[in-house]
Amino acid sequence: MKEYNVAIVGATGIVGKEIIAILERRDFPVRDLRLLAAEQSVGMELPYKGEELVVQQLTETSFEGIDISLFSSGATVSQKFAPYAVKAGAVVIDTTSAFRMEPNVPLIVPEVNPHTLASHKGMIASPSCMTIQLVVVLRPIHTAARIKRIVVSTYQAVSEVGQEAIDELDRQVRSIFNHRDVVCQVYPHQIAFNCLPQIDTVLDNGYTQAEMDIVNETRKILGDENMKITATAVWVPVFYGHSASVNLETEKKITPEEVQFLLDEVPGVKVVDDPEKNVYPLAVEAVGEDETLVGRIREDGSLENGINLWIVTDNLRKGAALNAVQIAEVLIWGGE
Amino acid sequence: MKEYNVAIVGATGIVGKEIIAILERRDFPVRDLRLLAAEQSVGMELPYKGEELVVQQLTETSFEGIDISLFSSGATVSQKFAPYAVKAGAVVIDTTSAFRMEPNVPLIVPEVNPHTLASHKGMIASPSCMTIQLVVVLRPIHTAARIKRIVVSTYQAVSEVGQEAIDELDRQVRSIFNHRDVVCQVYPHQIAFNCLPQIDTVLDNGYTQAEMDIVNETRKILGDENMKITATAVWVPVFYGHSASVNLETEKKITPEEVQFLLDEVPGVKVVDDPEKNVYPLAVEAVGEDETLVGRIREDGSLENGINLWIVTDNLRKGAALNAVQIAEVLIWGGE
Repeated sequence: MKEYNVAIVGATGIVGKEIIAILERRDFPVRDLRLLAAEQSVGMELPYKGEELVVQQLTETSFEGIDISLFSSGATVSQKFAPYAVKAGAVVIDTTSAFRMEPNVPLIVPEVNPHTLASHKGMIASPSCMTIQLVVVLRPIHTAARIKRIVVSTYQAVSEVGQEAIDELDRQVRSIFNHRDVVCQVYPHQIAFNCLPQIDTVLDNGYTQAEMDIVNETRKILGDENMKITATAVWVPVFYGHSASVNLETEKKITPEEVQFLLDEVPGVKVVDDPEKNVYPLAVEAVGEDETLVGRIREDGSLENGINLWIVTDNLRKGAALNAVQIAEVLIWGGE
Repeated sequence: MKEYNVAIVGATGIVGKEIIAILERRDFPVRDLRLLAAEQSVGMELPYKGEELVVQQLTETSFEGIDISLFSSGATVSQKFAPYAVKAGAVVIDTTSAFRMEPNVPLIVPEVNPHTLASHKGMIASPSCMTIQLVVVLRPIHTAARIKRIVVSTYQAVSEVGQEAIDELDRQVRSIFNHRDVVCQVYPHQIAFNCLPQIDTVLDNGYTQAEMDIVNETRKILGDENMKITATAVWVPVFYGHSASVNLETEKKITPEEVQFLLDEVPGVKVVDDPEKNVYPLAVEAVGEDETLVGRIREDGSLENGINLWIVTDNLRKGAALNAVQIAEVLIWGGE
């Protein structure tokens, strides 16, 4: 079997470490694994298949001989270094927001739009975690009943921001329980035992970047530039696992039973829906799972053709690292 | 000034204690305050205006001489004992779900529908906390632009359930931080660092009781039996303060600026909306406030006439105790 030289940019970050674990777990055909990070992490050792790999400094010349380069160090790093990787002949799979909306960069969720991957010019983007968990569920419904409008409210876990946000929630909870003042460094307000209705910067239209990312990325991935979508994106005091309350209006009538039947067949999606027995998707149960969980599937009687859903996924795994590795798999083996 | 004999049923509960504090703070004209509770709380002392009042046992004969009786002990207790209070000549103001949808029982939010109070036959209901915070904001918008449809997703604090749920969230967080197993007694699943998309029992239509309460109570209070509403109600790991993401479709166009202008004038509502400066309603800031906070007011471009809102209130105060006391104030002094 052909093997590939793989670089991970941001290897010491929370998504980078998850990528290493997933490459190992899925037995991705790696010949050489090059771990790259900023200067302060150089020399760190990270485990891969029983070995300790030494983290090297990310520079403009880091990508010689690399076939596939996975970027997870934030948009600024991708913007600066991804072009050097492409120039060196590597295919870039970028998990940051840097290139997602570039017309020439395919934005890929392998279960949803693998066919658009072939058009890549060295650069492929992985969507934001919230978009990924939406589109894997919405794609089959859109195909079956044509979605006209989506209203989504999110319940997003702090780990999306990175280790520093996990530490902040942890520290704030301990402060409150020890009667000390709460200190806010990562978020502008207390996140412990609170909800923050602002994710990313606020744009001129009053929406946040995260909210418009959901709108624009969903349209791009589903290939429907006019799909009507509105979003409210909210941080909740959860460490891992993004949840979303999703309201759909469809052109064709589709019953909850038909939605469940459709989704039961979809790779990467698991229907978890027996609320009378307290069975529905939960953030704490999605963690460590590859699948996106969907439940609370019910008819919305306020519309002619309406459906409500509750969708949960591990934001670091399918929401970032796993999706990136799956893109690499489609790249080398082709789509399903 | 005329003074009234007031009874509080469930005086030792989380809402009961809040009612006592609010009667005192608002200087409600109380002649005699009778604190009533189940047998296990009899003899407890609770402070009121510098005195310690002794809790008495709730019985069928507890209401002799009482003018106003505030019930906050759960629906079963209200169902059993409220009729005795009415029979004894007291007006019952019930904060539980027991009588809210009874056609002969006015369901009152004093800022919204004080005029329907006069029709009472001894029994008045206070809505569920989530409904209260919605209708105080929706009423003026409905009057100005006629709301056609509401999509709401809630972020509800555990204190709605009572002290035992506060203790459960507290205990689970400590268990997790001390590497002990999480024990679930109040909720069917872990609430610490998790979201639970089930509030109250699940009905035949797939919705929970809490979701249908929002639908039915909002229709009743706004006096529009056909208003289209769909809700998803979710517990979040927050102690105090309910948040809600609300999407509105209106018949007439109304801009975010007009909504803000309208709401700025409404008693009981405070516009908190400057997201570029990180200013928006927060559960931790709503706690201890009488006002319902509203922000993130923005146009929903996915509709001809659409508005998104983020609405937060102290679920124990305006969501329960304050609203009940305000109903009593309208009763004795008349509506504004």
